Amino acid sequence: MSELIHPVILCGGGGTRLWPMSRPARPKPFLPLLGERTLFQQALDRVSDGSIFAGPTVVAGEAHVGHIREQGGDVLSLIVEPCGRNTAPAIALAAARLPDDAVMLVCPSDHHIGDVPAFVAGAQAAAHLAKSGCLVAFGIAPDRPETGYGYLQRGDPMEGGFVLDRFVEKPDRARAEQFLADGRFSWNGGIFAFTAGRFMEELSRHRPEMAEAVRQAVAAGASDGATFRPDAGPFEGIAGESVDYAVMENTDRAAMVPVSMGWSDIGNWQALHEARAAGGAEAQGNVAEPLHELASCSNVMAVSDGPRISVVGLDGVIVVVDGDEVLVTSADGAQAVGQLAGAKGK
Amino acid sequence: MSELIHPVILCGGGGTRLWPMSRPARPKPFLPLLGERTLFQQALDRVSDGSIFAGPTVVAGEAHVGHIREQGGDVLSLIVEPCGRNTAPAIALAAARLPDDAVMLVCPSDHHIGDVPAFVAGAQAAAHLAKSGCLVAFGIAPDRPETGYGYLQRGDPMEGGFVLDRFVEKPDRARAEQFLADGRFSWNGGIFAFTAGRFMEELSRHRPEMAEAVRQAVAAGASDGATFRPDAGPFEGIAGESVDYAVMENTDRAAMVPVSMGWSDIGNWQALHEARAAGGAEAQGNVAEPLHELASCSNVMAVSDGPRISVVGLDGVIVVVDGDEVLVTSADGAQAVGQLAGAKGK
Repeated sequence: MSELIHPVILCGGGGTRLWPMSRPARPKPFLPLLGERTLFQQALDRVSDGSIFAGPTVVAGEAHVGHIREQGGDVLSLIVEPCGRNTAPAIALAAARLPDDAVMLVCPSDHHIGDVPAFVAGAQAAAHLAKSGCLVAFGIAPDRPETGYGYLQRGDPMEGGFVLDRFVEKPDRARAEQFLADGRFSWNGGIFAFTAGRFMEELSRHRPEMAEAVRQAVAAGASDGATFRPDAGPFEGIAGESVDYAVMENTDRAAMVPVSMGWSDIGNWQALHEARAAGGAEAQGNVAEPLHELASCSNVMAVSDGPRISVVGLDGVIVVVDGDEVLVTSADGAQAVGQLAGAKGK
Repeated sequence: MSELIHPVILCGGGGTRLWPMSRPARPKPFLPLLGERTLFQQALDRVSDGSIFAGPTVVAGEAHVGHIREQGGDVLSLIVEPCGRNTAPAIALAAARLPDDAVMLVCPSDHHIGDVPAFVAGAQAAAHLAKSGCLVAFGIAPDRPETGYGYLQRGDPMEGGFVLDRFVEKPDRARAEQFLADGRFSWNGGIFAFTAGRFMEELSRHRPEMAEAVRQAVAAGASDGATFRPDAGPFEGIAGESVDYAVMENTDRAAMVPVSMGWSDIGNWQALHEARAAGGAEAQGNVAEPLHELASCSNVMAVSDGPRISVVGLDGVIVVVDGDEVLVTSADGAQAVGQLAGAKGK
């Protein structure tokens, strides 16, 4: 059993840049943005091979429990965060409940991965390194000078991967182009592997108060079927921090496995447009259900929960209709959708 | 009484280029496209000065009767066309029921006129010429090389206007620029003045069968309150034709009065955008109710019957939400809206 990889799937974040489809009551992971299954269901599907993966553990806030049970079923192991404290405490909740030698594979629930076999192969390579005591990040092969992601700089090769030299914050365009040309940089997709014991050990070293609070929250927690609720008191006292900052950037055993798996964080409507277009769009880069009509258009995406969308004479425009909200944005404007009054719930 | 001008307001045409707001069940004249009153109501308002105008006569198809009574009231004189046969027979229905010396002012019901006093002054000048036996067209001062309208070429000046030398079909861009530079050309806005007797006389000369059929339809018609229904039999046999072709281009007494009155036929969404922007738009040429949000936009118009519209990072785009239809078009694309499947009722 300890040979199996233990998936830990994190559900967090609102996805306001995918407003108006993503809304507080129905956030991004639980939407069928690509295909018929939701991103959360696809995250479960990717780790469903029982010869490689143990049953996954989902870590999520109370607001998501209904969606998770509806889409993931009642037997899925679920840890309910008493409050949002970013990824390091969320991962620690899962780590503290697993055997020390269990290899965890931490995955976001709201990304798209086009090439699942490549993902599984990456998970196995990362697990191999994790068993030797490394804390491993997936390094996603960049195909453009993206300024919206953090980067990983790799060092010397090691068994099945590379030493991870450094985390780099989102770069400006010039640096992103430099990274792409350099070849040693990959995107940080927020996918990590380590044993539960090593993770808690490193957390205790670098964030001892956080580690202790999580241990207390787990010790005083309560199970109800497949749902575990840590004690709120100690957890609420934690200063929220990402796993990147709290652990990965501090450990001297960071490693990286390179993967090329058709990855997108679907961070905004333009990213979704690109992911859908890659999956086989109409001519001229248009993406729309047959109901809609795109006349003299190129690179236009139309998404609707009902009304027909007709577009004439435009290039590089995204139209989204959802309930009482209609969004029309340029490709570049997609980055700013989260700033709209509607996306802020006003 | 015979000194008063008799307005004849024509309600016809679907206005498919203003789809999805204009639809078969609620066509363009009956929409409040500019201001709180509909275009039809504004057409009535323009001729409401009882010291200048007699009570208007509306000529319309059966499908419009409900709208006309709702928006125009029960005492408004209405002639119901048994079927659509273009403008010459429609005008003849009104002419055949008026005294020979009554001066008619024929007006479309779906245009916008920003400067109503200029319109009234033009009507009085046209009526003066009409009384002397001319068939008078309003010549609208062009302010751009428009290719979407027919043109009138004026000749020698005459009392209060000009001899009308020639009707010119919609020109190409080069000719339109030539017309604008020439100075003798104006737009044909479909507004005409003549006495009822002169009109029927000219119609009898150039289209004797049409004139006779209209006389028979009127003679065998029936009144119900303020509503007159001509006999369908003779009217249905008429070969439909515009007043331009049937009469105005054939008479040797055609005249033109020049008017500059902020006229627009609101022929498509871009024309409406321009008319609304001229009436005091937001900064950057944007036009939208406060509900909507236009972020980093210029020359964008947002029109909705309910849902909020949010637009990001676009220039020269029109967004219209109406019931189960959403239209997004470029300024140039607005010309092609009538060709969309939705506009064709598919």
